[in-house]
Amino acid sequence: MKQASIVTIGNEILAGLIVDTNAAFLAIELQNIGIPVVSSFTVGDEIDAIVQKLNSASSEADIIVVTGGLGPTDDDLTRQAFAKFLGVELEFHENIFENIKSIFRFRNMPIPEKNRIQAYIPSGAEYIPNVGTAPGILARHNGRILIALPGVPWEMEKMFKSVVPELKEFAGTQTIEVCRLKCFGAGESAIAEMLGDKMLRGRNPLINCTVHDGIITLHIVASAENSEKARKMCKKEEKNLREILGDLVYGSEDETLAGVVSAKLVSQQKTISTAESCTGGLLSKMLIDIPGASNYFTYGWITYSNEAKITQLGVQTVLIEQYGAVSEQVAKAMAQGARKKAGTDFAIAITGIAGPTGGTEQKPVGLVYICVDYDGGCDTKQYIFNFERQFIRIRAAHTALNMLRLRLG
Amino acid sequence: MKQASIVTIGNEILAGLIVDTNAAFLAIELQNIGIPVVSSFTVGDEIDAIVQKLNSASSEADIIVVTGGLGPTDDDLTRQAFAKFLGVELEFHENIFENIKSIFRFRNMPIPEKNRIQAYIPSGAEYIPNVGTAPGILARHNGRILIALPGVPWEMEKMFKSVVPELKEFAGTQTIEVCRLKCFGAGESAIAEMLGDKMLRGRNPLINCTVHDGIITLHIVASAENSEKARKMCKKEEKNLREILGDLVYGSEDETLAGVVSAKLVSQQKTISTAESCTGGLLSKMLIDIPGASNYFTYGWITYSNEAKITQLGVQTVLIEQYGAVSEQVAKAMAQGARKKAGTDFAIAITGIAGPTGGTEQKPVGLVYICVDYDGGCDTKQYIFNFERQFIRIRAAHTALNMLRLRLG
Repeated sequence: MKQASIVTIGNEILAGLIVDTNAAFLAIELQNIGIPVVSSFTVGDEIDAIVQKLNSASSEADIIVVTGGLGPTDDDLTRQAFAKFLGVELEFHENIFENIKSIFRFRNMPIPEKNRIQAYIPSGAEYIPNVGTAPGILARHNGRILIALPGVPWEMEKMFKSVVPELKEFAGTQTIEVCRLKCFGAGESAIAEMLGDKMLRGRNPLINCTVHDGIITLHIVASAENSEKARKMCKKEEKNLREILGDLVYGSEDETLAGVVSAKLVSQQKTISTAESCTGGLLSKMLIDIPGASNYFTYGWITYSNEAKITQLGVQTVLIEQYGAVSEQVAKAMAQGARKKAGTDFAIAITGIAGPTGGTEQKPVGLVYICVDYDGGCDTKQYIFNFERQFIRIRAAHTALNMLRLRLG
Repeated sequence: MKQASIVTIGNEILAGLIVDTNAAFLAIELQNIGIPVVSSFTVGDEIDAIVQKLNSASSEADIIVVTGGLGPTDDDLTRQAFAKFLGVELEFHENIFENIKSIFRFRNMPIPEKNRIQAYIPSGAEYIPNVGTAPGILARHNGRILIALPGVPWEMEKMFKSVVPELKEFAGTQTIEVCRLKCFGAGESAIAEMLGDKMLRGRNPLINCTVHDGIITLHIVASAENSEKARKMCKKEEKNLREILGDLVYGSEDETLAGVVSAKLVSQQKTISTAESCTGGLLSKMLIDIPGASNYFTYGWITYSNEAKITQLGVQTVLIEQYGAVSEQVAKAMAQGARKKAGTDFAIAITGIAGPTGGTEQKPVGLVYICVDYDGGCDTKQYIFNFERQFIRIRAAHTALNMLRLRLG
């Protein structure tokens, strides 16, 4: 199986002034044509350092994709590094230079002397037609393909697509398909235990697991002789995982909890209102993240003070006095008040202690009550989220969305 | 001069499923304590591949910072790779395990057997106290320091800060002091033009610039024989920059717009309420991000429907009919209604078209009206944010906070 390595060139990326998004783009695109990326390097603008990384990359991979360092200034050294690595000289190409000149003519600008360097390509290498002023480079060397692309993301992406046919041909018949399952409601390790042997390394399909704000993504990666077979393997494994995980699985691919809830609200023609205390608008924001939110979201209240809970949602003063603002009773009254006032099918209320202060032994920081009120009843649950302020609130909002999802069925 | 190399571990990053932001964070923070990053590697979840990168990194650098692979599942292999690289065994630490168990006890959850592995540390290495369940690792080896941090950004950032004193000591007599100025209200290139020669590379102090959601951070990096002198250089340059940039500078170091606004509200003993349409709770969420928000935040309304604007905030129907819900008049009426109802000193209203649909030629996607209402007047402004839905809303919320900041003086 042919494998790839990515080399990102540039002092500004090495220094953290720019986050490198090119490597992620290339990794996904290469994976999609059946070429897994096995390593990736970032290196500064120095010829010897670049050559060293080209050596490392070619000891691990058959395809080396380099981004950056093709501009016209003195710190753009990819051309020189390629020539040194290949053991050849740079050659001036009149036709490339004409092409660059025509770009400046089109812009009604004189061509700066500096740009002449962009018409040089290592001897024996092919050039990839430019998108901006910089042409790319494609070299074959010891059974490997080396590609140099510009660092500017849109130029890089466009130019990469132009070499896809050559890469596909070089990679041969391997195909990899990936599908993703999105889960919420259990931790990474609990899900790993449920899946048992399925999580073993070296398996095909391979299952990778990533976590973000309590949302667990299972990546099912299947390799086969052809894409139909790989896709079938993916789908079969997806079915298995769904059976094991049940309603912990809320969606697939790029779906978010809010997106899934939103789609259910729209298809069931239901509306929702919110009453938030500790989350302070975050739950509403998530529901409104989805384009077309006006179809289901009408009213929201952020009742951060007790007074606001009483005057805006009609929570009885005696409930707050007797049970405290962070209690099952108040969560329920908030949700019921919001639903009544907004006239919606559902209302969600969240009240909790996000900290860092305000916790007691009985009611620690992280204690959150969530209520989903609907025609015919309400679901109220107590949670203790053991995180810091921001993450308590994100987890509370996600949990509220998940409760609504399960209620919507 | 001591130099660093960064090794990022994880199939999901190698595969491009997650963009690696940790490397950029670490590069800036390391640079800020006088340690330049000379290379960075990304590698998958395989012990031998990780060991190989640790070898490469230690051939180039004195400090190797690894992120990822400290979780409890079978594909988390950083512990094992560290042990193999160091040529030692893993050792179980009862106190680490107790610590992990206490986290699960606090969550009222049984501890999964899988999490036991997180209590293992290579023999002879130190552990870095955990932020989540995963402790970090700090090992000294052949005159180098190796550090393993979790991959989850907030855990990684917090844990990295805890090892800064040790890294500073290791880096020795170089002294670099960094201070940061946070700006809002002009673009990166406009600020670069205002600063002119001060942005030149190779200068001391050096000024680096990073941008995130419209917030521009200027990093002033001063090198000198001793920290007192470096700090003085920083402070002097900070003063210069503040003079040039005026009220574009809203704060320093890690300050957020909401944090600065919150501090002003608290010190002036003022209260605030919010009325949000397109931002859907995001502005309120930002104001409530700050611990102690109950001192100034009482009421918020998310009036996503016209009906909610009318019934909750008393916006006159005729205003909506005549000018549309996205108009200066409605923004003003929303803010005035919110302030009256909540009885607060200030109210902020935001109404706009976040898209992707709903735009017209007169009122394009990205058009937002923001009003800050206060005793004695109100500031209403029109903006056109040329981004997609999520970024329009973030920019609108930041801009609203900035308007309030300027009003608070």
